[in-house]
Amino acid sequence: MKTPSQSTPRLAQRIQKLTGSVARDILSRTQDKEIISFAGGLPDASLWQNLKLPDVPPAAYQYGPSEGERSLRSILAARSQSLGLDATADSTLITSGSQQGLDLAAKLILEPGTPIILEAPSYLAAIQVFKLFQAELHSLELDSEGICPQALDRLLAETQAPVIYLNPTFQNPSGACYSLERRKQIAAVLDQHDTILLEDDPYRDIAYDTPPAPPIASFLKRCPWIYLASVSKTLIPGLRLGSLTCSPELFPHLLKLKQAADLHSNRPAQFVAAQMLQDPQANAERLAGLCQHYREKRDLMQRYLSQHFSDLATWEIPSGGMFFWLTFKLSIDLSAALAQTLERGVAFMPGTPFFSEAEQAGCSMRVNFSLVSPERMEAGIRILAEVVRDLHQPAACAKSSA
Amino acid sequence: MKTPSQSTPRLAQRIQKLTGSVARDILSRTQDKEIISFAGGLPDASLWQNLKLPDVPPAAYQYGPSEGERSLRSILAARSQSLGLDATADSTLITSGSQQGLDLAAKLILEPGTPIILEAPSYLAAIQVFKLFQAELHSLELDSEGICPQALDRLLAETQAPVIYLNPTFQNPSGACYSLERRKQIAAVLDQHDTILLEDDPYRDIAYDTPPAPPIASFLKRCPWIYLASVSKTLIPGLRLGSLTCSPELFPHLLKLKQAADLHSNRPAQFVAAQMLQDPQANAERLAGLCQHYREKRDLMQRYLSQHFSDLATWEIPSGGMFFWLTFKLSIDLSAALAQTLERGVAFMPGTPFFSEAEQAGCSMRVNFSLVSPERMEAGIRILAEVVRDLHQPAACAKSSA
Repeated sequence: MKTPSQSTPRLAQRIQKLTGSVARDILSRTQDKEIISFAGGLPDASLWQNLKLPDVPPAAYQYGPSEGERSLRSILAARSQSLGLDATADSTLITSGSQQGLDLAAKLILEPGTPIILEAPSYLAAIQVFKLFQAELHSLELDSEGICPQALDRLLAETQAPVIYLNPTFQNPSGACYSLERRKQIAAVLDQHDTILLEDDPYRDIAYDTPPAPPIASFLKRCPWIYLASVSKTLIPGLRLGSLTCSPELFPHLLKLKQAADLHSNRPAQFVAAQMLQDPQANAERLAGLCQHYREKRDLMQRYLSQHFSDLATWEIPSGGMFFWLTFKLSIDLSAALAQTLERGVAFMPGTPFFSEAEQAGCSMRVNFSLVSPERMEAGIRILAEVVRDLHQPAACAKSSA
Repeated sequence: MKTPSQSTPRLAQRIQKLTGSVARDILSRTQDKEIISFAGGLPDASLWQNLKLPDVPPAAYQYGPSEGERSLRSILAARSQSLGLDATADSTLITSGSQQGLDLAAKLILEPGTPIILEAPSYLAAIQVFKLFQAELHSLELDSEGICPQALDRLLAETQAPVIYLNPTFQNPSGACYSLERRKQIAAVLDQHDTILLEDDPYRDIAYDTPPAPPIASFLKRCPWIYLASVSKTLIPGLRLGSLTCSPELFPHLLKLKQAADLHSNRPAQFVAAQMLQDPQANAERLAGLCQHYREKRDLMQRYLSQHFSDLATWEIPSGGMFFWLTFKLSIDLSAALAQTLERGVAFMPGTPFFSEAEQAGCSMRVNFSLVSPERMEAGIRILAEVVRDLHQPAACAKSSA
């Protein structure tokens, strides 16, 4: 045993931005199988309970190219092309989950003080990355069709932000799906300002009603873009595979950043994913089954929320993705609520970590419906509602009260 | 098709440090199976030609903890403990290859202008990462026992560097293995200055003669440390798995950095690695076979080098690892040599990218012996020598001439 270090090591300033994550604490507590967890964004393991992964050939054991396997890049580029993106296998990079795409994009663009625009609310792990790179975060409120193009235009003029991060399709956490018209308007505004669009699109294939409009990046005429996709939500999250497609001028930089980050992504996983995705017909059938499965869970959760939360909160029914986003009518102490629900075996995600500034957060919570089994869902929602009802304050929920 | 972007996007300044890598260009050219490649550091695929990976249970398909799988962390922590490190499973993080350990350590410590000390020569991908993070690189010459403790003491006093990066065991590229005495002296100097030691140790298990001395980190009494290990070199590189063990005060930061980088490493790979490493006896036998295999290749290469290079270069016989490091007696244009050897179907790695400043590089080359089959090795070395002999200049090879 060593004597502990007697002085604090000199660490980079960015480490001060690396605050503890509520989300992580909740997620680590919910590893306990007894907990009914609406907190994370985990797929339903019953979807793969009988799935056996294909055998991996020894050729996949050796070091591989930083770009990723050609077979998988081609499959994912074809998907991007079908969405209207100007993508080829050569401009498609395999990443270690789309989280790594955020890290690479941040390295490409952000330095201390770089302004970046994002939605309020936004994906919490993206906020974490942007803060780590000491960017200056500016956010725009979401309505049900997306952020407001005029407000975006003004904010771009004001901040001169070189980059915007959007998750326009079944957004995490709000579930919002930008309309076609809004996507085109936003693309036009970005083209005008020559802003880099970082578009995160992991939920596109989990659509319950009509298919979502094409990515905003497909409407750009001029400005650079990075489009992140994932196989975690619809195939196997444990593989940690995602992809990044981008405008050609950005690709060489991102490839070198990928090489410096981890040389390349796991090759057996890339082989498995390519095997599983190579037949478009089989893949479409698999996705249809997955959507049907999650649609039933969404409908079930909508029923239980209506029964238990109608007097407490408002929400939109998500047309895709994995989350309901509840906004409370009255003020509530969400930390106290979480402590109490956890004690009763139920987890949810408070809304605050989804905002770059805590003051922006109203009283909201994200409730995931993909993981919990139908049998346990009602009990969980009932307990959530009981705790929230007990804590509900008579004062109106002001933004500053969160 | 889109009109290409009409203005250069505003990227982070660090991107200017992301210069094209000679190493990468060579490696991508040597994907061609016909090339006899001494350039990379790839394991011999014949070692796993009959290896079938164990089946992965569906439990490994779900998202997992950022720390990594407990089973694998325990196995790797036990290994660290056996080397004298103050390590537990709780202070062991599974990384996506030890390259990711470098990225996480850089994020933890480096900001623009942070001084970092490294060996000359040093691992080229580490130099790439430190430059990307805009550190100020200072290097110390290696002799066959390691860097000089007195010179280190002076350089630490002069630069106030908060961190040093060392690869003391069968160093890439030089093959140097620090003596026990030197390790203890260096640890004492680091303790005095409270410098963070970043010790990279991927080749330890590939030892041909006596086992190497314990890690420098095991001799520290006071200062913080990060110890990187890899399963790429001795198990399966395609898995992209490494581990990071560190002093307890650094662990929480590195864990959050890991989470922000890619959430967690591929879980099926972690399961496979844990399965393959769990039986210490079987693992020791596997490693003994691997070392015997590579020892024969080292001896063969030594024979061919003696035949063809004795009049051209000097070198030490490496007692572990995967490389010979040749220093030429006379000046030679290594770019021209590489172009010519590639034309004749043979690749090597020029020494220059292993130095943080090109001026430090003498006339040297790194020659890998783990990948090429015994049958092709002599032809490759003969061609290398022929090209070098043709290009050899009469002037003495000064450091500035590289």
